[in-house]
Amino acid sequence: MLEDLKKEVYEANMLLPKYNLVTFTWGNVSGIDREKNLFVIKPSGVDYDRLSPEKMVVVDLKGQVVEGELNPSSDTPTHLVLYKNFPDIKGVVHTHSPWAVSFAQAGLDIPAAGTTHADTFYGPVPVSRPMTEAEVVEAYEKQTGDVIVETFIKRQIDPNQVPAVLVNDHGPFTWGKSADEAVHNAVVLEEVAKMTYHTLQLNPHKVVMDQFLLDKHFLRKHGANAYYGQKNK
Amino acid sequence: MLEDLKKEVYEANMLLPKYNLVTFTWGNVSGIDREKNLFVIKPSGVDYDRLSPEKMVVVDLKGQVVEGELNPSSDTPTHLVLYKNFPDIKGVVHTHSPWAVSFAQAGLDIPAAGTTHADTFYGPVPVSRPMTEAEVVEAYEKQTGDVIVETFIKRQIDPNQVPAVLVNDHGPFTWGKSADEAVHNAVVLEEVAKMTYHTLQLNPHKVVMDQFLLDKHFLRKHGANAYYGQKNK
Amino acid sequence: MLEDLKKEVYEANMLLPKYNLVTFTWGNVSGIDREKNLFVIKPSGVDYDRLSPEKMVVVDLKGQVVEGELNPSSDTPTHLVLYKNFPDIKGVVHTHSPWAVSFAQAGLDIPAAGTTHADTFYGPVPVSRPMTEAEVVEAYEKQTGDVIVETFIKRQIDPNQVPAVLVNDHGPFTWGKSADEAVHNAVVLEEVAKMTYHTLQLNPHKVVMDQFLLDKHFLRKHGANAYYGQKNK
Amino acid sequence: MLEDLKKEVYEANMLLPKYNLVTFTWGNVSGIDREKNLFVIKPSGVDYDRLSPEKMVVVDLKGQVVEGELNPSSDTPTHLVLYKNFPDIKGVVHTHSPWAVSFAQAGLDIPAAGTTHADTFYGPVPVSRPMTEAEVVEAYEKQTGDVIVETFIKRQIDPNQVPAVLVNDHGPFTWGKSADEAVHNAVVLEEVAKMTYHTLQLNPHKVVMDQFLLDKHFLRKHGANAYYGQKNK
Repeated sequence: MLEDLKKEVYEANMLLPKYNLVTFTWGNVSGIDREKNLFVIKPSGVDYDRLSPEKMVVVDLKGQVVEGELNPSSDTPTHLVLYKNFPDIKGVVHTHSPWAVSFAQAGLDIPAAGTTHADTFYGPVPVSRPMTEAEVVEAYEKQTGDVIVETFIKRQIDPNQVPAVLVNDHGPFTWGKSADEAVHNAVVLEEVAKMTYHTLQLNPHKVVMDQFLLDKHFLRKHGANAYYGQKNK
Repeated sequence: MLEDLKKEVYEANMLLPKYNLVTFTWGNVSGIDREKNLFVIKPSGVDYDRLSPEKMVVVDLKGQVVEGELNPSSDTPTHLVLYKNFPDIKGVVHTHSPWAVSFAQAGLDIPAAGTTHADTFYGPVPVSRPMTEAEVVEAYEKQTGDVIVETFIKRQIDPNQVPAVLVNDHGPFTWGKSADEAVHNAVVLEEVAKMTYHTLQLNPHKVVMDQFLLDKHFLRKHGANAYYGQKNK
Repeated sequence: MLEDLKKEVYEANMLLPKYNLVTFTWGNVSGIDREKNLFVIKPSGVDYDRLSPEKMVVVDLKGQVVEGELNPSSDTPTHLVLYKNFPDIKGVVHTHSPWAVSFAQAGLDIPAAGTTHADTFYGPVPVSRPMTEAEVVEAYEKQTGDVIVETFIKRQIDPNQVPAVLVNDHGPFTWGKSADEAVHNAVVLEEVAKMTYHTLQLNPHKVVMDQFLLDKHFLRKHGANAYYGQKNK
Repeated sequence: MLEDLKKEVYEANMLLPKYNLVTFTWGNVSGIDREKNLFVIKPSGVDYDRLSPEKMVVVDLKGQVVEGELNPSSDTPTHLVLYKNFPDIKGVVHTHSPWAVSFAQAGLDIPAAGTTHADTFYGPVPVSRPMTEAEVVEAYEKQTGDVIVETFIKRQIDPNQVPAVLVNDHGPFTWGKSADEAVHNAVVLEEVAKMTYHTLQLNPHKVVMDQFLLDKHFLRKHGANAYYGQKNK
């Protein structure tokens, strides 16, 4: 079942090592079929060079495996919460990419410091609050998703406009309109984390960009009036 | 038309991924035919591994596409302003190379800190002032070029001697006597940004080099008395 | 003799350049046969591209070479002390990987700053005290092992739960239940050293993670209740 | 003439891009025949992928080209001064490797911070004093060599024991008993510059290693009592 989606999710997973976003098995990609309410995700702890489309695991929105012989990623309940709460997204990525993790461990947002950031993220990439002991001890991976959703609600951030979060003391999750776009956003996140780390070291007093420049760059690439690329062709 | 220039500009574009200056499509190179007043530029948002000489777009100095089926780079109006105002240049490059962007986001010049810098840039690489809201909202890419030109005029910098700028909160533009030389200068810029970042962390009180050492290195490579390389052979 | 172990140790040694943990010959891996009380180790100063299983050296627990034409690694006495004092380990790795060395030279532990660390190391990776002149002048490599063991005893750290140490002003040793696992731990160590270095620069006041998050991540991968990967399949 | 030496120097030059020590043509290696008092050096400004043994230039100790159609490296007079004043060396390397340049631009020695350093450099790698205007304007490259020699004399450093220097606001020169060993030392220099930069950021108050540890590591690899590697086999 879902052979096309399995292939797409497999290929998106293989982009993680291509873009140097993972060491060993520290990452996973999923993609969802919104009509069937089923998503496909990487199996847990399997090396990237031993992956194949058939090894992908199909999971329903109750978190039950409906096809696949391997355990799904241990982060599956987090993906599930994101799919349920962010209805427009169709792909989710989790990595431990090192620059994004550095901000997550520092408990700091990645501020919008320049146009590279603004082309993809319409505002700072938020860090979630630290999880409580109760949230960690029980149903940890599901509650990781809940804390992400809480972050976007409390700070009134649109997850379609800022498709990334840093889970405190953990690492990034990104998402998008497909598994491939979610990987794209994971690559951009790592790149802007690296740039903005260095900006903070050079000049901590002048990091946040002007709102009108942020508007310009985000909106020339996204939404009805976008003019970047070949969209009007 | 301009088949040789298209090939040259195509090849110069392909150097950007070779030298690790771009992620995805975050960069573009153009080259100009000064006799015909036409320039050739990368199409907008097209992946580097799908580029070919035929996909290059030919643009005139009014900004009109005169040949090519794809949209030209969204940065085309910036390239155009540079060609109009810096009459000796024949190639322009824009990237989001991460070390140069770090300085651009910090709003800081890259000071001339050593001979690596001096071999290519005869003085600090300037950062432009932040653009105003009016400049960003309307004709943004053209006004980006205007702000670059303003920077060189106000600070009395010769663009032939300092063939690079950092656009505030954005990233670098470089140029040269050909598309290839403009890419060369983009590579050097990224390398000196990296070196000088680390120098600033090691010893912020001792960064700027002596003027006579800057003179020596720039002039032994450039101008009438150059003696580096095989020029007098 | 020990042909399988020689092959295993050879292959583990070859992972060091693969994972960019060594420059030139700055590293070595060994593996032990606990029944025969013999271990196999890289020969001293031999380039990785000239290694082969047959060149591995077999050493007994008195430090005597029992097979092999080449000198064993000069760090052999350190490996020996670790095998004697940490009875559960079957592989040892030494490298000069640069991020771990940076902490070793600074005389600082790598604090447990996030889940990447917690998945492998159940607490900070300790730095040993500086060695005394007497310890360095005589039987230096053996006493390096003694100082590592002292560090774990004095600080009451279980070497099975924190399979790594930073030798002060020198570099990392890691170990594991096999030569391959010891290399795995060396890779993780370098990665968390890099991440946590940057966290310390971003926010030195918020680095150490909550104990309950450390517990959760270490114990979901290690021990009786582990549920990561395909263990329960 | 000197066909073997030309081949050796050619191959040593080709190690510079292999070890990522050069961008474009920013580096050169030479090697000397001490009996004939002739040295072989890279031609000036020639790309590495266009080099060949026949393009190497033969120079005598008056600085005259005695064979070769191309101009020798513009740094030839510096190499010459080093060969004349450091009688035991047979190879010299100059690069703009970025970590070493960062210290050179900061005007700082690379302190001996750990055993990686001590295995090759018996003490801090010195930075030369800034050159005067007179030294830069006239016979600059020769006087660069003179300032290097002055540094070793004034600070009573043995160039055989510390085979490297940082030329202030410029970059590193290294040397050795062959062109190949000089490249080896250039690789080590870049690696220890990187490590020690990060150590200085982590803990500026605890960087310099104990003298007895420096003695131990340098002397177990160098001199009459060395026991590292396969020397006593």
